[in-house]
Amino acid sequence: MRESEFHRDLGAHRADFPPHVIVGPGDDCAVLDMPGDRYRLITTDQLIGGRHYDPESTGADLIARKALARSVSDIAAMCAEPFACVCTACFREQDAPLATEIHRAMARYGAQWGAPLVGGDFAIGSQTLLTTTVLGTVSKAAPGPILRSGAAPGDGVWVTGLIGASYETGHHLRFTPRVSAGLELRRRLQTHLHAAIDVSDGLGRDAGRVSAASGVRIELSASRLPLRDPLRSAEASLSDGEDYELFFTAAEQARLPEVLDDGTPVVRIGTVVKGSGTVLRLEDGRTVDASQSGWDHGR
Amino acid sequence: MRESEFHRDLGAHRADFPPHVIVGPGDDCAVLDMPGDRYRLITTDQLIGGRHYDPESTGADLIARKALARSVSDIAAMCAEPFACVCTACFREQDAPLATEIHRAMARYGAQWGAPLVGGDFAIGSQTLLTTTVLGTVSKAAPGPILRSGAAPGDGVWVTGLIGASYETGHHLRFTPRVSAGLELRRRLQTHLHAAIDVSDGLGRDAGRVSAASGVRIELSASRLPLRDPLRSAEASLSDGEDYELFFTAAEQARLPEVLDDGTPVVRIGTVVKGSGTVLRLEDGRTVDASQSGWDHGR
Repeated sequence: MRESEFHRDLGAHRADFPPHVIVGPGDDCAVLDMPGDRYRLITTDQLIGGRHYDPESTGADLIARKALARSVSDIAAMCAEPFACVCTACFREQDAPLATEIHRAMARYGAQWGAPLVGGDFAIGSQTLLTTTVLGTVSKAAPGPILRSGAAPGDGVWVTGLIGASYETGHHLRFTPRVSAGLELRRRLQTHLHAAIDVSDGLGRDAGRVSAASGVRIELSASRLPLRDPLRSAEASLSDGEDYELFFTAAEQARLPEVLDDGTPVVRIGTVVKGSGTVLRLEDGRTVDASQSGWDHGR
Repeated sequence: MRESEFHRDLGAHRADFPPHVIVGPGDDCAVLDMPGDRYRLITTDQLIGGRHYDPESTGADLIARKALARSVSDIAAMCAEPFACVCTACFREQDAPLATEIHRAMARYGAQWGAPLVGGDFAIGSQTLLTTTVLGTVSKAAPGPILRSGAAPGDGVWVTGLIGASYETGHHLRFTPRVSAGLELRRRLQTHLHAAIDVSDGLGRDAGRVSAASGVRIELSASRLPLRDPLRSAEASLSDGEDYELFFTAAEQARLPEVLDDGTPVVRIGTVVKGSGTVLRLEDGRTVDASQSGWDHGR
């Protein structure tokens, strides 16, 4: 079973959910209703030594940073605000000396990113693995949480920052989750902001998730992709993953500056049309299926 | 580093917390403030194959049940209500076929216990390990969340259910978290309900946590302990752990029936006095230190 199948299977229980579950499994966060003017969000993810970072070359600070940043990025993907986090850690015996430094670093990044570390659990085992859960909040007023399912034909398709070569350049360990950019997009675009996801498994695959959830076709233009490594092809770059940028769609008339107030670059890279699937239009005019590019974290 | 040290270290960051963190690490749940008349609670815990259950003899249903029940029990320990849960799972290759059944079972128990499973993540690794995070809510009206730190000299000391021999009897896999009992205690005792904890690491050790957090001495009476295995000594039984019963203290004048409305037995087992430490008074009049009995899940 792959992670994507796991989520589909989780989603099958949706009909059983009580009414306070506004969005269940399958988007970047679950959305929960409570009295008051804001929804509550929750997202959880695990960081596995040897899979998501190299245990030989990665220090405690960067391990903690990445574990937390990935989950905060899921809050940013709904253009929402973090609220608190908790973390469990299982350490291989030889990694146990990292425990104190890891959770101090996580407390520090949590404070910095608006997600104070309020609880956790610690154990020794045969694998080093951190599970980080982040809570967030978002206004119930329109546009509410920005889901994967809101893209509409005619929308422009946009992305923040740079795409590709994240692992090779160390970006995957040092990125700052796009919380302030997400909030600025919400403020600037309001109900013109239609759909969003954070790019974790490759721009192609994550764009494919938006097109599938929204029931639309997404056409990306290779010449417009903001590549981290300009020597790498657009096709390869959108398969790389671990960018943790915001991919979003907005009404055709939406306008954005080239750089947001917090310094984040933002660029239009394509268009939403009727149909299905996600394609990349190459500079020679050919189109390739982009939605199968990228990787499934589950394996 | 042991789990208890980890929590102490986490607690050291308390001063840095923003004002919405009412209770940080170190109690059964963190307590978070938001507009509205209820606090939000969050608790997280990990269940490790070969540590918390026997992978050879434990089926998917009971693995899921225990993983979720332990965290729901932390919500019950504050006499609060569950609200939602998320779960990450890492499976050894040979355990991966359990994945579907485990998360279906968790969705079922979550629905049953008021904690719908709204998200998760799934991976393959070298150890089977589930991390379950449960959200809860509790009224801000007095007595609010029932903390470990509320015990006062003169209080009676009480416990639900039976103590000891949990692992041998399979109770640790089949218990139902004491949510309804906790809510009934809150309703019956109101501001007379002073402190509570769920008994996970042994009644002696967990009573010791209440006495330390409250700055009081707890005296338990061996003859009053409700033992699951009557052939096992009181001293041994309060070291066993994994009871997941509610241990609580209430004002001297508090009265409770022998059995709560939901069928949960409840019995007074001791008294809170001035001083420090937790002792067990044996039938021959000797007292023994009870707070070092039990085990630290961290090792």
